[in-house]
Amino acid sequence: MSDHSTKKQIILEAAARLFRDKGYSATSMRDLADAVQLKASSLYNHIASKEEILQTICFDNAHRFLEGMKEIEQQPGSAIQKIEALIRLHIRIAREDITSVTAFNDEWRHLSEPHLGNFKSLRKSYENRFKAIIESGIQSGELKPLHAAVVLYTLFSSVRWLYDWFRPNQSLSAEIIENEIVTLLLNGMTLK
Amino acid sequence: MSDHSTKKQIILEAAARLFRDKGYSATSMRDLADAVQLKASSLYNHIASKEEILQTICFDNAHRFLEGMKEIEQQPGSAIQKIEALIRLHIRIAREDITSVTAFNDEWRHLSEPHLGNFKSLRKSYENRFKAIIESGIQSGELKPLHAAVVLYTLFSSVRWLYDWFRPNQSLSAEIIENEIVTLLLNGMTLK
Repeated sequence: MSDHSTKKQIILEAAARLFRDKGYSATSMRDLADAVQLKASSLYNHIASKEEILQTICFDNAHRFLEGMKEIEQQPGSAIQKIEALIRLHIRIAREDITSVTAFNDEWRHLSEPHLGNFKSLRKSYENRFKAIIESGIQSGELKPLHAAVVLYTLFSSVRWLYDWFRPNQSLSAEIIENEIVTLLLNGMTLK
Repeated sequence: MSDHSTKKQIILEAAARLFRDKGYSATSMRDLADAVQLKASSLYNHIASKEEILQTICFDNAHRFLEGMKEIEQQPGSAIQKIEALIRLHIRIAREDITSVTAFNDEWRHLSEPHLGNFKSLRKSYENRFKAIIESGIQSGELKPLHAAVVLYTLFSSVRWLYDWFRPNQSLSAEIIENEIVTLLLNGMTLK
């Protein structure tokens, strides 16, 4: 990454953190300049407005999820294998990048039109393709006969704590956490 | 409930909704008065300040979760049965009352001291008691040997979508959703 794009990523992450802590509406460009230790005038070399930041965060992440989906759809494998790969995709993105949480959860509501409509379409497309995989697994008898929407939203939600509470340490590495969440969602916590 | 306490509950719910949509910092008492169609002067008959609202929301819900925990701890039953009862408690509270989501997730961060410290202690106590039940289930061999913290936070998170996305309808009742989430978390989505 160039220095310019690295700086931009730092700005996006600081903005996502401020949006989470203060809310999008209450966050000012001044807050953001302070958070990344830049003068407001230098901040504008990287980013034109608060709305542009939100657009970048939302659409970069939407494309990231959709690219992950496309790769997984094209791989051979059972529905369970594809769902496992999608859960791992969600966990890794949530763990690595706070901007994904911003995009996926709350703050996209603050986009203005036509961006809001475009974002909702991308999100809907992602959800529908994920649901189609769940439904194919139910039809083939790999999965229990649950409602695909309940499975989908429970999966999406279940990894949200990773950004707020995740502190890897020696006894609990990122890899262990990822494997245990996958086990829990695919096979449950009950030992049979 | 008296008219006064009903009105207070309506105010708390409107406040929780505003905190979610705009953030605590950006929500004014004026916004709240508008949302509940009261004059600001009438609003102050029910609530002294924005911080008092947040305190009420956080501590009412903390006590609600802790009372549920106490009842469940005192019942006879296996660790699995207690965990199932706790998952159902979280689902019902999340489904019925948006103020619980506010309290449990993000907005408690805005409490001032000593309330913040007190709230964190209650929350920690709840988490530790929930973890103790999970750990007893792991030790007795009812549960898979997962880390209790991973199970706990995944459970907490997994029901967060209920407030944002839950729209019961004829094909997908509240009861079906609750049972399917319990199945998913206890036994996984895989059909074995």
